[in-house]
Amino acid sequence: MQKMVSLGEVMMRLTATGVQRIVQATKMDVLYAGAEANVAAALASWGVHSFHVTRFPDNLIGKAAVAWLKYYGIDTRYVGFGGPRMGLFFVEQGAMARPTTIVYDRLPSAFSTVDANTFDWEKILDGADWFHWTGITPALSQGTADALNAALEVCARKQINVSADVNYRSNLWQYGKTPGEIIEPLISKSNYIVSSENDTRNIFQFGSAKGADDAFVSISEQLMKRFQSIKAVISSDREQLSASHNRFSGKVWDGGQLYMSNRYNLDQIVERIGTGDAFIAGYIYGEMNGWSKQDSINFGTAAGVMKHTIEGDTLPCSVPEIQELVKGNTSGRIKR
Amino acid sequence: MQKMVSLGEVMMRLTATGVQRIVQATKMDVLYAGAEANVAAALASWGVHSFHVTRFPDNLIGKAAVAWLKYYGIDTRYVGFGGPRMGLFFVEQGAMARPTTIVYDRLPSAFSTVDANTFDWEKILDGADWFHWTGITPALSQGTADALNAALEVCARKQINVSADVNYRSNLWQYGKTPGEIIEPLISKSNYIVSSENDTRNIFQFGSAKGADDAFVSISEQLMKRFQSIKAVISSDREQLSASHNRFSGKVWDGGQLYMSNRYNLDQIVERIGTGDAFIAGYIYGEMNGWSKQDSINFGTAAGVMKHTIEGDTLPCSVPEIQELVKGNTSGRIKR
Amino acid sequence: MQKMVSLGEVMMRLTATGVQRIVQATKMDVLYAGAEANVAAALASWGVHSFHVTRFPDNLIGKAAVAWLKYYGIDTRYVGFGGPRMGLFFVEQGAMARPTTIVYDRLPSAFSTVDANTFDWEKILDGADWFHWTGITPALSQGTADALNAALEVCARKQINVSADVNYRSNLWQYGKTPGEIIEPLISKSNYIVSSENDTRNIFQFGSAKGADDAFVSISEQLMKRFQSIKAVISSDREQLSASHNRFSGKVWDGGQLYMSNRYNLDQIVERIGTGDAFIAGYIYGEMNGWSKQDSINFGTAAGVMKHTIEGDTLPCSVPEIQELVKGNTSGRIKR
Amino acid sequence: MQKMVSLGEVMMRLTATGVQRIVQATKMDVLYAGAEANVAAALASWGVHSFHVTRFPDNLIGKAAVAWLKYYGIDTRYVGFGGPRMGLFFVEQGAMARPTTIVYDRLPSAFSTVDANTFDWEKILDGADWFHWTGITPALSQGTADALNAALEVCARKQINVSADVNYRSNLWQYGKTPGEIIEPLISKSNYIVSSENDTRNIFQFGSAKGADDAFVSISEQLMKRFQSIKAVISSDREQLSASHNRFSGKVWDGGQLYMSNRYNLDQIVERIGTGDAFIAGYIYGEMNGWSKQDSINFGTAAGVMKHTIEGDTLPCSVPEIQELVKGNTSGRIKR
Amino acid sequence: MQKMVSLGEVMMRLTATGVQRIVQATKMDVLYAGAEANVAAALASWGVHSFHVTRFPDNLIGKAAVAWLKYYGIDTRYVGFGGPRMGLFFVEQGAMARPTTIVYDRLPSAFSTVDANTFDWEKILDGADWFHWTGITPALSQGTADALNAALEVCARKQINVSADVNYRSNLWQYGKTPGEIIEPLISKSNYIVSSENDTRNIFQFGSAKGADDAFVSISEQLMKRFQSIKAVISSDREQLSASHNRFSGKVWDGGQLYMSNRYNLDQIVERIGTGDAFIAGYIYGEMNGWSKQDSINFGTAAGVMKHTIEGDTLPCSVPEIQELVKGNTSGRIKR
Amino acid sequence: MQKMVSLGEVMMRLTATGVQRIVQATKMDVLYAGAEANVAAALASWGVHSFHVTRFPDNLIGKAAVAWLKYYGIDTRYVGFGGPRMGLFFVEQGAMARPTTIVYDRLPSAFSTVDANTFDWEKILDGADWFHWTGITPALSQGTADALNAALEVCARKQINVSADVNYRSNLWQYGKTPGEIIEPLISKSNYIVSSENDTRNIFQFGSAKGADDAFVSISEQLMKRFQSIKAVISSDREQLSASHNRFSGKVWDGGQLYMSNRYNLDQIVERIGTGDAFIAGYIYGEMNGWSKQDSINFGTAAGVMKHTIEGDTLPCSVPEIQELVKGNTSGRIKR
Repeated sequence: MQKMVSLGEVMMRLTATGVQRIVQATKMDVLYAGAEANVAAALASWGVHSFHVTRFPDNLIGKAAVAWLKYYGIDTRYVGFGGPRMGLFFVEQGAMARPTTIVYDRLPSAFSTVDANTFDWEKILDGADWFHWTGITPALSQGTADALNAALEVCARKQINVSADVNYRSNLWQYGKTPGEIIEPLISKSNYIVSSENDTRNIFQFGSAKGADDAFVSISEQLMKRFQSIKAVISSDREQLSASHNRFSGKVWDGGQLYMSNRYNLDQIVERIGTGDAFIAGYIYGEMNGWSKQDSINFGTAAGVMKHTIEGDTLPCSVPEIQELVKGNTSGRIKR
Repeated sequence: MQKMVSLGEVMMRLTATGVQRIVQATKMDVLYAGAEANVAAALASWGVHSFHVTRFPDNLIGKAAVAWLKYYGIDTRYVGFGGPRMGLFFVEQGAMARPTTIVYDRLPSAFSTVDANTFDWEKILDGADWFHWTGITPALSQGTADALNAALEVCARKQINVSADVNYRSNLWQYGKTPGEIIEPLISKSNYIVSSENDTRNIFQFGSAKGADDAFVSISEQLMKRFQSIKAVISSDREQLSASHNRFSGKVWDGGQLYMSNRYNLDQIVERIGTGDAFIAGYIYGEMNGWSKQDSINFGTAAGVMKHTIEGDTLPCSVPEIQELVKGNTSGRIKR
Repeated sequence: MQKMVSLGEVMMRLTATGVQRIVQATKMDVLYAGAEANVAAALASWGVHSFHVTRFPDNLIGKAAVAWLKYYGIDTRYVGFGGPRMGLFFVEQGAMARPTTIVYDRLPSAFSTVDANTFDWEKILDGADWFHWTGITPALSQGTADALNAALEVCARKQINVSADVNYRSNLWQYGKTPGEIIEPLISKSNYIVSSENDTRNIFQFGSAKGADDAFVSISEQLMKRFQSIKAVISSDREQLSASHNRFSGKVWDGGQLYMSNRYNLDQIVERIGTGDAFIAGYIYGEMNGWSKQDSINFGTAAGVMKHTIEGDTLPCSVPEIQELVKGNTSGRIKR
Repeated sequence: MQKMVSLGEVMMRLTATGVQRIVQATKMDVLYAGAEANVAAALASWGVHSFHVTRFPDNLIGKAAVAWLKYYGIDTRYVGFGGPRMGLFFVEQGAMARPTTIVYDRLPSAFSTVDANTFDWEKILDGADWFHWTGITPALSQGTADALNAALEVCARKQINVSADVNYRSNLWQYGKTPGEIIEPLISKSNYIVSSENDTRNIFQFGSAKGADDAFVSISEQLMKRFQSIKAVISSDREQLSASHNRFSGKVWDGGQLYMSNRYNLDQIVERIGTGDAFIAGYIYGEMNGWSKQDSINFGTAAGVMKHTIEGDTLPCSVPEIQELVKGNTSGRIKR
Repeated sequence: MQKMVSLGEVMMRLTATGVQRIVQATKMDVLYAGAEANVAAALASWGVHSFHVTRFPDNLIGKAAVAWLKYYGIDTRYVGFGGPRMGLFFVEQGAMARPTTIVYDRLPSAFSTVDANTFDWEKILDGADWFHWTGITPALSQGTADALNAALEVCARKQINVSADVNYRSNLWQYGKTPGEIIEPLISKSNYIVSSENDTRNIFQFGSAKGADDAFVSISEQLMKRFQSIKAVISSDREQLSASHNRFSGKVWDGGQLYMSNRYNLDQIVERIGTGDAFIAGYIYGEMNGWSKQDSINFGTAAGVMKHTIEGDTLPCSVPEIQELVKGNTSGRIKR
Repeated sequence: MQKMVSLGEVMMRLTATGVQRIVQATKMDVLYAGAEANVAAALASWGVHSFHVTRFPDNLIGKAAVAWLKYYGIDTRYVGFGGPRMGLFFVEQGAMARPTTIVYDRLPSAFSTVDANTFDWEKILDGADWFHWTGITPALSQGTADALNAALEVCARKQINVSADVNYRSNLWQYGKTPGEIIEPLISKSNYIVSSENDTRNIFQFGSAKGADDAFVSISEQLMKRFQSIKAVISSDREQLSASHNRFSGKVWDGGQLYMSNRYNLDQIVERIGTGDAFIAGYIYGEMNGWSKQDSINFGTAAGVMKHTIEGDTLPCSVPEIQELVKGNTSGRIKR
């Protein structure tokens, strides 16, 4: 069994019932999720021994979060307890022209108060095959950036594969550092970079014509030149017709070739949240199994597509279920 | 802060869960709504001081209705108590070819027993900028027609803008009068008339070719000739592909020019009920703010579109949220 | 009032809430259903005196099942009690590319332990106008096959019309007999056969080109030649674009002519389960009323279409509601 | 199988969730119930062929009511359709010192518009062993009183046993007649009268000391003297400690002897509504089976006790379950 | 209509369904509440014009909170918007020996960031008859203590009655000041002090024997000597047999006499939270209406008792409903 | 961290909502539980590394069961997949005199088809400190009895402590063997026996006066004489006043002394199911930590008491929460 480790904040998610707005809600659905833990959960459900590393407040909320990570199949033995509070986010699901809206209530979360020495990375990463992080973590605080950097140094030494979802959100990054200065050394120790051309351009100020795949290749090319560690740049493409109707595909550039998945028409979206995480988990699964880039991007894209049919942040679909989609069966015919 | 007053019945609405039929329901969703109060609620949420005038039975149901009007932001100080019972309506939501079905259980409601002297219109309308009524009110009983007429006389004297949603429903009007004889004097004291060409034709027996916008202009022209008080005729256009899929736009004729909104494709309708009220509220909001007819019809139509994405009778969307739609952003992209 | 009798297993159905997967479910919706009872329920709701014959365990579950059959309007006086347990099936509703998935947990059900003498068919079928069975019943056990055969012998003697939904499911049939040897004598006593060309071909090994309606006619022709009892072969056509989007029509071959219904576009499917049963019930209703084949297939197809808008296994729609669809009104316009 | 017939209004009941007050409710539980139909439902569940006679509006609500009566096992073939609307009642469940509160919204219900000729009593009562009515029916309108009287005349002629639950509610009786003048001829055709000493005294102005069982005997004695038809007077005794805690027993006077049940301590009441109906149904069941007065009152009281543990208006408990209570087993030990 | 003003934090309350623990919850009930707003809500429901003053974040959560305060009947015109986030608290309801547990997640809430100049007290308190605060407010931050002090200075000048619920919670008070130094000047401008002998002793270090009412009188006596402004000291007595069973009474010392309410046995508690606020609201209502101390404490205690039968933080019971309890009717007999 | 292993069937539990009966249920709560897994879950929540060994069908239901065992904190790595179906049980919660009723639907479950070689006990029990089984397992089939025996042989060799909950249910044991012949060799390899005097007497035919603790001591004495392996006999005492009200205590006989816990009054029971499992888990926890018999029985009884306040089969209460009860704090005072 392969082993992967992810690091990142896990929050309580509170979702207004159905398509209600928050002002209408007298009940909310509760779950616990985070971009990195969502990836770990999907990989765990496919048989990878997935460890998620984070910190929770030492109260009933923090303990509940651990139980629910276990339900996702995640090994929680390296979760720490302490710090002020649980980060939260509130969700109201959109429909047609009305967007899904997320209200974050993150700081001062227990996770944001970690530092370079909170986690014993030597032990945690011992025997690991893969490490996954996202751009949210270094954006939260100097401490989370330091904790991540400490992990990446151990990964580099142990030659563990590292994937990074750049996931640039400008309204984070409030502790006085710029994304560029913080992310640069982190990317330089990472191998599989999930980043759209826009995110890459915004963080690293590459000059290149905006546009479709050409732009992605051109920008990714520059990224790979700057960082020798990078083996591939991965991105999903989403055409946003409405909150209920998207078109979705994936692509990967390995420095020499562009591999593209099918393009899926998603005209009755159940939930958008977590679809990017499912996409990344699927791609990582392919790489961890030594699949070709084409097979990996196909599987990742199909995993992302399936997540659009599922409530919640995580993807409870098996490898054969996803592969049926890769093979082209999108009929949704009843299975008995 | 501007002040508006509306008059009309508010009923308890009982909706079978989800898309269940009434025979399947073991639970029903409860809310309190009415065409005129829905308009007041939307305007209240946009910062207008909205008073709704009605009458409830003096029991636990009537008191609950008041609390829920307050939740919508409506000033209920002029709601009266007394009379036999609360009007009700039962809703089952349709899907595809199955229509949404409404079973009304209205008479003998507390509101239907009001008369010309029930409400102190001098006091209620003091300082008001706008008054709104619909064709449901004069259709219920002579008493409600008289109460409305009393209000309109005060409006005329005080030069308060009056909007009227003709909303012709032939199966009301059971107290022995024809719509024509009752509505004529009411329209003659109103300024902004919401009426499709069919409703106008049916009530006032105007002769004109049926058809699209030309017909609307021709009929509205005749209406404005007959009633000097009218400043504009407003209507929405709805193409009904199925219970789940409509196309929707708005238009207004000011006696000289026809202003038309964009046409929206609504292919995953959450709820149809209250969309007309949201449309009218949006148009009134434009007029109350001195916007152009074009801007007003754009805003009204976008408000109506947004209501198709919302459960319940009322529209809990802010002015900026609606204006984003006016600006052309229908992507439904997640807002964080 | 006409009388119809159906025979078949009724199971408890447990459905994960909304579009949740089973692993996500903390609540399940409960109902009691079976292919044959679904037909009886629809006919009962249209005024036919419908008796369903089955067997339940003599416990709280079996008694609940009887109460719910009564709620559907079915006469349960010939339901027997005894045997080991209630058959069950678990459902998770699909969306887009994710299929609806059904997990059956059937054997050793109370119904599967009946035999040729369990039911007093002389009494049960006395005065009956119609008898309905499906291919599920003979597939369960020798006993259920024998019980069915006993019923059909009485039907033949009493000249009761018999409809059979072949409904071939290869993963049933585990008691050591082949479908061919068991079904042959049953079909030879039946008059209205619901069977796609594939099912007919698979069971009776007819050789014919696969394809569209021609194939259906060719195969049905052979079927009618082999079995003199058959008056018509009925089938629905379903184009499966996704779990949420199908196209659906019906057709019937009476030995001389092919009658086809309109083709309906179903782009927001509420539920697929039971749509075939509604289709058959609608067709039988036409035949029981002496309607033409064309009218019967139109009504059956419209009944099937309506079922796609309804939660649960059964069809709670009246004859006028369905006929509105037959007349071409698919607008879903609100009914007040 | 014995046959019983009941007559009376069935209303839609809307109950705020759990122990919420109506003002707090955003959902309500829906069921269909009435005092007489509750008795019919209990008897049906015990194997009596129970017919309930009433009238519903000819709309989706009325059709739903029929389906739910069937679910209770009631034969609905004599239910009529027509008239203005469905009667309703709203319930909020009390707790401790806060009473359960019921808001009735009855008139002008479909049932209240029946008259002496609405129902074909000759046919309905053909072969009946028992007829049951309550004092609510003659209190609603002259028409309902006449319909009841017509039924009782047929009962008298056919020598059908008649039970009457006096159930005096002074706030009904609004059509201009006094309870005395209307009820007198009805009681004179009835045999088993359920009436507390207070109700008897209030309707028939008997003079007797208020008090416990002595008063009951004394008053009942007078009642039996006035009406030769009466074979027994039945009453429950309820000590009301709080909404959650009552003590409950039953008694019957047969003109010569007083039979009393055990007294039950009910300290965690689930629901009070319908407990009187369950009590009466239990007593009737005893009489229909020729049990002794003591056995009948024991069974009736135990049925009433069981209903305090059940949500809704009707009693879904089997004869053996109730008899276990009669035998003294109140331990509530888990049954596996 | 009298006018009252309250100041204090309003939080979103998230409650695990029924008696579930937080770790078991997949849904939570949502409402918005705070000790002071709960008092304002009860008074508003009894006809007092109640203004609540607080601050919310300027997002969807803050806007929802305003709508729900309006639903309680509170005038929200002086609610401010701004600051980091909404305070939250999580509740799991206890049963028997398992305590109800509350997890607070308060700082850095929007309310905690107010200061002495945030609110225009001259305007807010203009024409007010009463002002209410609790010890939670000065415990949160120097800013909230200053804002409160500013309000009290205006109250003193305008001779507005001030009630204070000392409500001492030692785990608040984290900004470096002791309760004593902060509360002293606030109490010195307040007139009606709700404080148990323990809270009084803990804050002001009075030396007195612990014990029953004597101790309360002795301590309250000392309190009134130290602060000339105090007109009465009020307290509830609660005997805590289990989470489900308490005994509850109220008392007030006016410097000369001790007034005590009845003692109520509460053996099926629906919810404990907010019972103290209901008690205080009831007492204030008596004082605002010029009732005697005895009548006021009776009404306050009965209001507190009623709240134990109600879900949520606030008390939706009318004055007559509460007075029925004061008169001794605790029977919970059904009201029709 | 200590390690414990349990063996036993895990079933899907379907519970009618609230206190509904099964016939009333349109929704059921879903969870996965079994007597032995419940013990493992409690121990896991207290920090013991708990492995549960069982077998599930290889379908969506079996996979869901694994996820929910993980949520309880159980290590599922030795769960096998295969066999016909998932065992089920249906629950309706009682109230007062109405018992909680459980309908089992167990055979032919996947677990019942295991045999002596299904599990690799050498590996599973490697390093284990404790093994737990119950009398349900050998009652199901010869295969489950053999699998258990195989485990106990390894335990004996490895000197692992073994606890056995005799849990005698006569309606199991349908495969042709008597409890005596099967259980004898299993008890002879077990050390801590949970058994009431009645169960012990029934299985081993000991002759002794029925009665209270004396009888327990006398019977337990005989048991310990027959089986040298036994170190202690443990039992709970339950006085069953109603389904809602019990009294509960625990006791243990170690061959020389009787240790008894406090007796708890449980007058508002939330749920009875799983209370015995919580009791046993608590006792085992004490033994695993080397606590005295008195401390162990106190903790076990308090754990059992807490379970009566919790929905579901398992006990989500921490060691400090339970110890507060042991210390005598049963006040249920709100924790903030």
